[in-house]
Amino acid sequence: MLPRRPLAWPAWLLRGAPGAAGSWGRPVGPLARRGCCSAPGTPEVPLTRERYPVRRLPFSTVSKQDLAAFERIVPGGVVTDPEALQAPNVDWLRTLRGCSKVLLRPRTSEEVSHILRHCHERNLAVNPQGGNTGMVGGSVPVFDEIILSTARMNRVLSFHSVSGILVCQAGCVLEELSRYVEERDFIMPLDLGAKGSCHIGGNVATNAGGLRFLRYGSLHGTVLGLEVAAQALLRFCRPSAPARGCWVRSCLHSSSWMLCACSWSGAISTWPARCKMLWALRERITEALSRDGYVYKYDLSLPVERLYDIVTDLRARLGPHAKHVVGYGHLGDGNLHLNVTAEAFSPSLLAALEPHVYEWTAGQQGSVSAEHGVGFRKRDVLGYSKPPGALQLMQQLKALLDPKGILNPYKTLPSQA
Amino acid sequence: MLPRRPLAWPAWLLRGAPGAAGSWGRPVGPLARRGCCSAPGTPEVPLTRERYPVRRLPFSTVSKQDLAAFERIVPGGVVTDPEALQAPNVDWLRTLRGCSKVLLRPRTSEEVSHILRHCHERNLAVNPQGGNTGMVGGSVPVFDEIILSTARMNRVLSFHSVSGILVCQAGCVLEELSRYVEERDFIMPLDLGAKGSCHIGGNVATNAGGLRFLRYGSLHGTVLGLEVAAQALLRFCRPSAPARGCWVRSCLHSSSWMLCACSWSGAISTWPARCKMLWALRERITEALSRDGYVYKYDLSLPVERLYDIVTDLRARLGPHAKHVVGYGHLGDGNLHLNVTAEAFSPSLLAALEPHVYEWTAGQQGSVSAEHGVGFRKRDVLGYSKPPGALQLMQQLKALLDPKGILNPYKTLPSQA
Repeated sequence: MLPRRPLAWPAWLLRGAPGAAGSWGRPVGPLARRGCCSAPGTPEVPLTRERYPVRRLPFSTVSKQDLAAFERIVPGGVVTDPEALQAPNVDWLRTLRGCSKVLLRPRTSEEVSHILRHCHERNLAVNPQGGNTGMVGGSVPVFDEIILSTARMNRVLSFHSVSGILVCQAGCVLEELSRYVEERDFIMPLDLGAKGSCHIGGNVATNAGGLRFLRYGSLHGTVLGLEVAAQALLRFCRPSAPARGCWVRSCLHSSSWMLCACSWSGAISTWPARCKMLWALRERITEALSRDGYVYKYDLSLPVERLYDIVTDLRARLGPHAKHVVGYGHLGDGNLHLNVTAEAFSPSLLAALEPHVYEWTAGQQGSVSAEHGVGFRKRDVLGYSKPPGALQLMQQLKALLDPKGILNPYKTLPSQA
Repeated sequence: MLPRRPLAWPAWLLRGAPGAAGSWGRPVGPLARRGCCSAPGTPEVPLTRERYPVRRLPFSTVSKQDLAAFERIVPGGVVTDPEALQAPNVDWLRTLRGCSKVLLRPRTSEEVSHILRHCHERNLAVNPQGGNTGMVGGSVPVFDEIILSTARMNRVLSFHSVSGILVCQAGCVLEELSRYVEERDFIMPLDLGAKGSCHIGGNVATNAGGLRFLRYGSLHGTVLGLEVAAQALLRFCRPSAPARGCWVRSCLHSSSWMLCACSWSGAISTWPARCKMLWALRERITEALSRDGYVYKYDLSLPVERLYDIVTDLRARLGPHAKHVVGYGHLGDGNLHLNVTAEAFSPSLLAALEPHVYEWTAGQQGSVSAEHGVGFRKRDVLGYSKPPGALQLMQQLKALLDPKGILNPYKTLPSQA
């Protein structure tokens, strides 16, 4: 019941590891990673290209010479074993499957840079993959894109105990970072159900909202800087250490935070144990739903006063065609996670859901993507939330950074913009 | 002494006013604006083009036909009176002076859009101006750019009392917005000395840090969206109402906030009156310094433990050549406002300061621009903090949005990148 020592929390600068310790201080040792594997004995996931109307773009295919070049860049970090490639080809919801033949495991941003330079020259498509915990198919290949895994880029590079600035690699697992900073009386501004597997790079890429949004606000507001591998493509010079701002934030007693965070569950409680249990239940919802069979997932941003309406609307609309229609989320930021479950994927149920859900959302001036990102699944519905001019500008920005379009193709941007 | 009702605070969506009330709710009436005028009887400020080595780019000059077109777009909002143009041609520090012959005062984003379309077609350069309280010469013309004032774009368009979302025009004065939301038991996440004059559009453009940074973090983290006039140039469709997220943040007792905020002044105090006085003193430093004559201003981001070293270093280096060397700022985010004053501008004092200050900052891996923006004054020193590749990318992004380079030329980006 007594407040623990007040917690402040850090922002962080993500960057790839320099060759050695670099000017940011010595590496603080590798952090353990929880893998994300598919359960044995589960049925095969259909190939994405067979379920969805998507056509392979004219990228090159990986040759023996490419593999030899990759082996020179990341010795011992080139995976071509079909068995080992099964899990990273499938998203964790087990609804999408690519057919990549190569996975690369760099340790440093220099290695990433060399890989991307090679892929750019050879016109090879690349699919970056962190913890593979995404909800929208952004982290798995659609065809045979090379999987660029951040699993071995899991080092904390430095932590400043006054300013609270954490500098780490993109592949650090959120839960490990939380533990790391909590041992130093800080707290990560982000927490979410997938924390045991998700990588901080993916969190930042999707601007993940999560369970602490109400208190700490938008994740991007706490990111001080990024080191971006596209520099290699643009023939940029090797960057010097990025400029850093030093800062710390003020304190909040953990007890009042508990009270506040728990209020969303409808149970006002100051008991840390009960809170923990409530959160644990909340964090398991996604996993529990996937046991129904197939889950149609939506992640909407809506006016708070209309947040639950679509759930009751869909229950009436779908009747027995759906096993469950479940809505939960973040009252604070009007983010609804809408889940419709069924025994298996069915085109007729999909047709009953889409575009209805998106049209309903647009009618509320809501957004069809809140915190899960756009990925493969949402790319063709962005138009419900964004005007054509904005989509065109996104395309132009992407083309500026990735002129050949090799970086995670078939994702985020509409196929016809 | 008793905590007031706990305060939550809003984020906001900035957008231009729709023709009428629009779908965001009815306009909440114009807010008063405090003008920013030069004192009478002060000596003439030298023309920027005579003091600095800068050459006019080949933009068109404003013709009678242009004036007639502007009068059609913003009836009664075209200022050409030389008397009235004196103040907006000079920055408030009185160190830079342009020679613009036209100032436009639109009321809506549609008018801004039409103005920019015309300027784009005619290759006329444009200098947007808010409260003209900037420190880096970003808000005044260098040559004869058309001044596009946001002074009449000062309406709150809507405020949501649950989510805390404020939608307003770019020309709202920060202090007026503070008053508006405080009447509704919210608080703006930003406060700074110029609050009585500065416009929220300028605050967002420079990602102003200010006095509440320690508690509320980066301003950009609380901005939910912007409506950007460059859409007109790119022949974008007229946007539909932008997607909005709904959110609210948790509470902080105002008493503990006072304590925390005041601790920077070195005086731990829970007395609101004393706090107010301390803050008032802090807010007047900039004004007081300008009475010395000429102020060389630097706004650096440095490691907290080295924050004050440059002040003592410069006092020893400059000796009696400087009237005062003053350093103050934000311990929380390592932001130092370094000020060197003298009777008048002197090239030899400038040579003693630059590039020394920038080299010293780069040596600490600091940033040459913290919260004041880059503007005219800092554009050629960005290279001390950013690698050439990053500067090149900034140029490319600017060119994408503004292909003819008419939007605030001579600012922010290096003259030779």
